[in-house]
Amino acid sequence: MMNDLLLRALKGAPVERVPVWMMRQAGRYLPEYIALRNRYGFFERCQTPALACEITLQPVDIIGVDAAILFSDILVVPQAMGLEVQLIENKGPVLPDPIRNDKDLQRITVPDVQDRLHYVFDAIRLIKQELNGRVPLIGFAGAPWTLLCYMVQGKGSKTFDEAKAFCYTQPELAHRVLQMITDTTIGYLKEQIRAGADAVQLFDSWGGLLGPADFEHLSLQYMRQIVAAVKDEAPIVVFAKGAWHALGAMAATGAQGLGLDWCVPPEMARQLAGNKTTLQGNFDPAKLLSPIPVIQKEVKQMLHDFGRERYIANLGHGILPNVPVDHARAFVDTVKNYDFNKHD
Amino acid sequence: MMNDLLLRALKGAPVERVPVWMMRQAGRYLPEYIALRNRYGFFERCQTPALACEITLQPVDIIGVDAAILFSDILVVPQAMGLEVQLIENKGPVLPDPIRNDKDLQRITVPDVQDRLHYVFDAIRLIKQELNGRVPLIGFAGAPWTLLCYMVQGKGSKTFDEAKAFCYTQPELAHRVLQMITDTTIGYLKEQIRAGADAVQLFDSWGGLLGPADFEHLSLQYMRQIVAAVKDEAPIVVFAKGAWHALGAMAATGAQGLGLDWCVPPEMARQLAGNKTTLQGNFDPAKLLSPIPVIQKEVKQMLHDFGRERYIANLGHGILPNVPVDHARAFVDTVKNYDFNKHD
Repeated sequence: MMNDLLLRALKGAPVERVPVWMMRQAGRYLPEYIALRNRYGFFERCQTPALACEITLQPVDIIGVDAAILFSDILVVPQAMGLEVQLIENKGPVLPDPIRNDKDLQRITVPDVQDRLHYVFDAIRLIKQELNGRVPLIGFAGAPWTLLCYMVQGKGSKTFDEAKAFCYTQPELAHRVLQMITDTTIGYLKEQIRAGADAVQLFDSWGGLLGPADFEHLSLQYMRQIVAAVKDEAPIVVFAKGAWHALGAMAATGAQGLGLDWCVPPEMARQLAGNKTTLQGNFDPAKLLSPIPVIQKEVKQMLHDFGRERYIANLGHGILPNVPVDHARAFVDTVKNYDFNKHD
Repeated sequence: MMNDLLLRALKGAPVERVPVWMMRQAGRYLPEYIALRNRYGFFERCQTPALACEITLQPVDIIGVDAAILFSDILVVPQAMGLEVQLIENKGPVLPDPIRNDKDLQRITVPDVQDRLHYVFDAIRLIKQELNGRVPLIGFAGAPWTLLCYMVQGKGSKTFDEAKAFCYTQPELAHRVLQMITDTTIGYLKEQIRAGADAVQLFDSWGGLLGPADFEHLSLQYMRQIVAAVKDEAPIVVFAKGAWHALGAMAATGAQGLGLDWCVPPEMARQLAGNKTTLQGNFDPAKLLSPIPVIQKEVKQMLHDFGRERYIANLGHGILPNVPVDHARAFVDTVKNYDFNKHD
């Protein structure tokens, strides 16, 4: 591996500079991505290894990030479990037959991931070959709670109130679904690693909708199982947006990395996570809409506050579609050029 | 005042039991509200004192809450400042000509609130007369940051990225708009109090979209001005959803009350707020979709955790439209019947 900064940061090994990547870096702010999006449907892009590979590599070539992250979607797991998933551009996902009761559970299984998600592993093998050791490849999956949100609500939502009502009124069913997602996800991430993923990330995008007790019952206890099953095969980063109250508990899972949103002060995250966890984050994605000198100033402040060790620079959530490409590049370049010995 | 529990709780005076009300209690979960909504447009309901009064009183009569809150909308302030606001049922607000540049500022003013918002004060006088001392009346306004979000974005948004970009690229303009909103809001809340509001609440619904430093610059410094101008005329509650990192700073404004969302653990809130601030919240609104025995159990746990003194029971955000009326009533009744001396 020519550039293994990310893997060293996740191990707590010394690094000469902070590694940097951006959540959703292979996405809609890149004209090269838009060109492919206009020609191929979403699942066509995910399921065709050559396309997934091309999209995954775009930000490595164009922006110069220190890691590639597999182009895919968290909803390929509910799809593999048996649910229909539609991804309509600019409209968000729709699952036309969501899970609502006992009978609906008959429509989902813990699938053979080799069979149902082979295209992901094929894509990973191709990407690894094309990357040829330039930077590490990150695999990923959605956290069980976030996947349940979509599987029950059937679409995006500000509150995911139907998903929450399902858990509150039919807790036994909810836990069965969460365990099925967990089992599928463990197999899925292990196969991603076997195919060549150098690290993996677990995204709990809707973790912040749960109060502390519910987060433990409905999300963290399942993420804990996944971390335990995976962490000795490859480093794993856990990211639950908005679940600030559980940062200490997430660090205690043994995950090598802890993703942070932009509301978490660096010193607080370090205090809660201790020195055995690598912190990742947490630039406000909307701040990439600022003028470049403002981006540079604020990125330097972030680097100064997190420090060089056990830290991966990233955004606090996915990059927004309306960010100019040179602003994304300014973010990455500022991290790469920052000198910790000189307060610039 | 026959039932002044809320006002005593805000003063830190002894109470025989915890007062309870619900954000958005005069709203879409009530069939009696839906009946009026089907007959009158949104602004017709706001601007006709007899209608605003009838809607405000509905939850007092039907659910038995310990306070009425004025039926209105935070967007009457941008409207009074000169912007067109459309409120389309089930679609959210639209401001067709949002603020984007220097020239757009010529379209807004700090209005004479007596002239532009007289219907609110007329409604308050009528409500006070009809309440006839049964329970206190709460007035309210949106926090300047939250109002700027709508005034710039022009509609609801998950990220309010255009509003944030406006602040990051044109900070001087943004601060002029925020100060104009602040000045209008101070006049507006003072007139609400003069008309009879017994307490007021400031809603920063989108405060949680800002990182700690931005929250201070773009939200809290303006809320601080409002609290300072109002708090000696009537008790004021500050509620910034998601801004957990600023709870201590919000308590330090001198506001008599601090609203909490359901992610904040009660013991943490008490520690940050000290004993001079009354805490208000923080039941997960989606949990009102649980079976009634679950609601009762969880409400009791919340009461136990917050304790009787300097506490007002409420939800952690507005009540959802799909909550059954008897579930809302179970929430209120459980608070009213809880015995702190008996662990039931």
